[in-house]
Amino acid sequence: MEKMKAGILYGSGDVRVEEVPVPRIKPDEALVKIKAVGVCGSDVHYYEHGKIGRYVVEEPMILGHEAGGEIMAVGEDVAGLKVGQRVAIEPGVTCGKCKFCKEGRYNLCPDVVFLATPPVDGAFCEYLAMRGDFLHPIPDHMSYEAASLVEPFSVGLHACKRAGVKPGDTVAVLGLGPVGQLAVVAARAFGATKIIAVDLAPIRLQMAGEMGATTVINAGEQDVYEAIMKETGGVGVDVALETAGSTATNLMAVRVARRGGKVALVGLPPQPEVPFNVFDIADGELDIFGIFRYANTYPRAVELLASGIAPVEKLVTHRFALEQAKEALDLARTDKQGSIKVMVNL
Amino acid sequence: MEKMKAGILYGSGDVRVEEVPVPRIKPDEALVKIKAVGVCGSDVHYYEHGKIGRYVVEEPMILGHEAGGEIMAVGEDVAGLKVGQRVAIEPGVTCGKCKFCKEGRYNLCPDVVFLATPPVDGAFCEYLAMRGDFLHPIPDHMSYEAASLVEPFSVGLHACKRAGVKPGDTVAVLGLGPVGQLAVVAARAFGATKIIAVDLAPIRLQMAGEMGATTVINAGEQDVYEAIMKETGGVGVDVALETAGSTATNLMAVRVARRGGKVALVGLPPQPEVPFNVFDIADGELDIFGIFRYANTYPRAVELLASGIAPVEKLVTHRFALEQAKEALDLARTDKQGSIKVMVNL
Amino acid sequence: MEKMKAGILYGSGDVRVEEVPVPRIKPDEALVKIKAVGVCGSDVHYYEHGKIGRYVVEEPMILGHEAGGEIMAVGEDVAGLKVGQRVAIEPGVTCGKCKFCKEGRYNLCPDVVFLATPPVDGAFCEYLAMRGDFLHPIPDHMSYEAASLVEPFSVGLHACKRAGVKPGDTVAVLGLGPVGQLAVVAARAFGATKIIAVDLAPIRLQMAGEMGATTVINAGEQDVYEAIMKETGGVGVDVALETAGSTATNLMAVRVARRGGKVALVGLPPQPEVPFNVFDIADGELDIFGIFRYANTYPRAVELLASGIAPVEKLVTHRFALEQAKEALDLARTDKQGSIKVMVNL
Amino acid sequence: MEKMKAGILYGSGDVRVEEVPVPRIKPDEALVKIKAVGVCGSDVHYYEHGKIGRYVVEEPMILGHEAGGEIMAVGEDVAGLKVGQRVAIEPGVTCGKCKFCKEGRYNLCPDVVFLATPPVDGAFCEYLAMRGDFLHPIPDHMSYEAASLVEPFSVGLHACKRAGVKPGDTVAVLGLGPVGQLAVVAARAFGATKIIAVDLAPIRLQMAGEMGATTVINAGEQDVYEAIMKETGGVGVDVALETAGSTATNLMAVRVARRGGKVALVGLPPQPEVPFNVFDIADGELDIFGIFRYANTYPRAVELLASGIAPVEKLVTHRFALEQAKEALDLARTDKQGSIKVMVNL
Repeated sequence: MEKMKAGILYGSGDVRVEEVPVPRIKPDEALVKIKAVGVCGSDVHYYEHGKIGRYVVEEPMILGHEAGGEIMAVGEDVAGLKVGQRVAIEPGVTCGKCKFCKEGRYNLCPDVVFLATPPVDGAFCEYLAMRGDFLHPIPDHMSYEAASLVEPFSVGLHACKRAGVKPGDTVAVLGLGPVGQLAVVAARAFGATKIIAVDLAPIRLQMAGEMGATTVINAGEQDVYEAIMKETGGVGVDVALETAGSTATNLMAVRVARRGGKVALVGLPPQPEVPFNVFDIADGELDIFGIFRYANTYPRAVELLASGIAPVEKLVTHRFALEQAKEALDLARTDKQGSIKVMVNL
Repeated sequence: MEKMKAGILYGSGDVRVEEVPVPRIKPDEALVKIKAVGVCGSDVHYYEHGKIGRYVVEEPMILGHEAGGEIMAVGEDVAGLKVGQRVAIEPGVTCGKCKFCKEGRYNLCPDVVFLATPPVDGAFCEYLAMRGDFLHPIPDHMSYEAASLVEPFSVGLHACKRAGVKPGDTVAVLGLGPVGQLAVVAARAFGATKIIAVDLAPIRLQMAGEMGATTVINAGEQDVYEAIMKETGGVGVDVALETAGSTATNLMAVRVARRGGKVALVGLPPQPEVPFNVFDIADGELDIFGIFRYANTYPRAVELLASGIAPVEKLVTHRFALEQAKEALDLARTDKQGSIKVMVNL
Repeated sequence: MEKMKAGILYGSGDVRVEEVPVPRIKPDEALVKIKAVGVCGSDVHYYEHGKIGRYVVEEPMILGHEAGGEIMAVGEDVAGLKVGQRVAIEPGVTCGKCKFCKEGRYNLCPDVVFLATPPVDGAFCEYLAMRGDFLHPIPDHMSYEAASLVEPFSVGLHACKRAGVKPGDTVAVLGLGPVGQLAVVAARAFGATKIIAVDLAPIRLQMAGEMGATTVINAGEQDVYEAIMKETGGVGVDVALETAGSTATNLMAVRVARRGGKVALVGLPPQPEVPFNVFDIADGELDIFGIFRYANTYPRAVELLASGIAPVEKLVTHRFALEQAKEALDLARTDKQGSIKVMVNL
Repeated sequence: MEKMKAGILYGSGDVRVEEVPVPRIKPDEALVKIKAVGVCGSDVHYYEHGKIGRYVVEEPMILGHEAGGEIMAVGEDVAGLKVGQRVAIEPGVTCGKCKFCKEGRYNLCPDVVFLATPPVDGAFCEYLAMRGDFLHPIPDHMSYEAASLVEPFSVGLHACKRAGVKPGDTVAVLGLGPVGQLAVVAARAFGATKIIAVDLAPIRLQMAGEMGATTVINAGEQDVYEAIMKETGGVGVDVALETAGSTATNLMAVRVARRGGKVALVGLPPQPEVPFNVFDIADGELDIFGIFRYANTYPRAVELLASGIAPVEKLVTHRFALEQAKEALDLARTDKQGSIKVMVNL
């Protein structure tokens, strides 16, 4: 049996690059040679804490779920893919039979098998077997790093879709990690003409400008509420996207939405209870949308990134080899101000 | 100048029935002889406290905004109405020119003139001048009391519309005051087949059954969460309507919604901050909709009540003459368990 | 190998009841003992012409796709079903992997396997193997005939959903075969308060009244356009559902829709080109929706019929045994005025 | 009484520039000094035929309804505008009280007063009195010509909105007059990544490329259906926008839409009956949307053009002074291949 290298999490702080068997594909799967895989906040969280909420790493698990690669073999039941094709990998395999799958909200499928979510292995490895319908071809001029960024971009697109961002809208993005940065790009894709990006780190604010933000607000230097009200003529924003995962940004998202505005909650605050003001929600007739991953975004996301909508590779501030998986995770864990997306290239 | 009787609020606890001039209509108004006007929770609140939030009664003000009556005179610019016509009165006159009015969300019009909201006089009186386009004809077989109930029914319809209630849905209604009762009727109108109604008062639970609830839960006797989970096979409801205006029901509405479910927040809790669980909202990908009054409901609401969808007049548990306005308000204020809708008939 | 009886189409006019093997179930299937199966217009069309458009019967094929039955065996991978359970059978098995399946429009799945659509065998037989997720439990008090009627009812629900029927709407149903009759029921489920049903056959008009139509128009005796305009105060209907499949009803559906109204095209006219008036469509800003089968209707449809929304079994005007399959088809073919739904009971 | 010059249509082919009184504003109006006004196809049609369908020019009428200008005086009831402000003029004044206005579809208001639609005078003149809420401020860097182009751009935006164009969509625009060109821009604003533009005139095809079309098809040289199928991998487009107003393009729009796709009918063919294929509509489950003017587009359209989304002034191929109104109309009438937008500048 052939072997490959993989970055395996054994427990908190314990990641090792080891040899494991190359997976064998089923008839409806293809084998992908991984070319680029991003470090996500969830990878870092498992690495630090060994769990995320109810998901606990009990057996050694390969990390990584934001990946792009090249097809090496195609199962006999797979249509539309061929060896040598370059693909973005959608990391959750859904059942296709439950109520949610049938209604088009497959992100809520209770039987989803999602990369690097215990006990499912992820993509910090050389080869991955994946069901064919979750492999999305990318054009030649699109990089594997961009392919791996389709995953966090999908979160932004899904949030903008659910929140109904429309051409000419004013959108606030609260929190400028990779998901926030790509939410800026997503808001542009939906036609927002004013995009107000908020964070504490100057590097992130500058990067948001490159992604398409029209105004940036440093939350450490300005009163965010006042600054957004000033920017919107006292009205508030059409859509507020919470992408920081803090109590403060959750509360701010509701405050800065205009009457009749919409709020998407993307990040998870450390403490789940957030004391939202129901007067503001009811009197302002707000819509608040919880966001969980994404559905039906990949082909569109590939189209959009391939069209050159934003220079998303700039989000990759640090690059490592697979052998350096631990270094990659350590950097992402410790340098949250200085890094945006840490990428593992193979 | 002709005189009429009116129930005027002078301050907390001070309502007097006095003579005031009959209003004169403008060219785009009609004069309505009031026949029935309901006592709303907001009337009681002004009566008790002299204010609701930022709305303060500074001058004597006629109460009442849920009314039906007969047209006595029609302004020259009014089309489609005639003397003798029986109408339901939509109580908020909107500007027609602002962004909200033009987009079909006129309930958010910042320049709305709303009956019995300071400093605008209401409908506890014999005659009311109202812009013609807010007077909605009712058929002969529909009572004036039903016409007055179109107002709280509209709140239920608007909540169900925003929350997207669909045929075959399971809906929970948390709180069975008049708005909750009529939200049960609204859920039926939208095709819900399972309607779970929750309250503490037996009379309200029994009434909800008559309005169309398929299951009633006494929150004083049962664990509401467990009872709803049992009723829904552990899944939760498609739509939860919060109509009680308490912190507990707000929290419960989010808890009992199924994955991908929807929540409408109709009532205002005494304390605006409610510690919603953002994990539940995001992980379950809930939609939460703030509800503020209603828009574009009246003609449909009249159609629905006229079609006999539910015996809504049964909601009227107590009736008073205009001269008894104070007694009506006192009863509504003190007997919240024993009364549902208190009506003033003229 | 066990044998069962089946009604097999050999060619135009040639249906024979013969013995064939009982199907064996796969791990994700269940075996259903058929209890009731309706004769659909498509069955009659195959029986008469041996084909429908591009679908040609080239090998002997069992007819029938509107069926209810009892579960006799359950495959090892099927969750949530058990032997003895009573079910409605959703007749199209979709791939779950294509764009349409993933977006919630599985009725457009190009790889659907649909009962009694060449070369797939149907349900005019004693036992059927069907993937578990297309078997929908029905409550004890719901008949197998009602279960089989869930299929045409689904068409009506899907049409009403796509056309956005809302509580208080006025809906016209043009053509009162089984689908039209059940479209009347569907319009009720969506809250329509005025339902105008149009056909030529008195028995169908009377039946539509029992299904919930509030007005019936005999197209042989009245000018349909004038009658609908009179009924709607000259405005037209909110939604027109074309269920007859004639050129005249297609044109009428567009004519009777009000400004800003909606039209659903359900039936297929013998001659596909219909000279719609583009002035009317553009000037009236109509929405026209093509309807192809249905998706995500079954569980809701079962809920609605089980709730007793309409006495749908009355639609069954004639009943036959499986051995009489040919008589059933002949009756349905020849007595289009006198019969509504012809049912085969086992 | 002050006088101004105006381009007045006296009858077919008879336009004269004459002196008429400067209009006086009502309290809710502002007086605008016209700076740029485009020649629309409807102006040309009135000029040629003296009528459009049921709208007949019976009295001399000032033409023109696509205009931008500077505010010279503001009525006492107008909020938010001031003298010297630069504005785009939305040309239809709606009633604000009818069902359509209240529901947000004010383009369907039966009492609309629309510039240059008999008997209402238009904007080929020096000063125009217009209700304040239909004057939309533009930023300093946006030209008056761009302001006048907001009108046809609004048609494109409205069509894209109704047809639900989404980020990553493939859109076909059939017909590249000014509305088609601006529909290309609108499709970009909604995030379409592939925009296929079709026309016969090379100048228009080249211009569409500058507006954002990614593929252009010369209908005189290529088989349009084959070319679009090739461009879309045999699938068809997500959305087809018919902007030519011919029978052939109406039919083509339905043919090139993919299964589950959408079609917007914007242009009016000379012969209203178009023999659409109902099989294609039903089997492909298409949505077809009639388009009539626009609603709620202006502020967003100004934002979008001001953001520099496309060099729309390039669409202005010919410029005239007000005194040359007849020459402007003659050019627009006779040189349909060589001109795109003819503009009158003051």
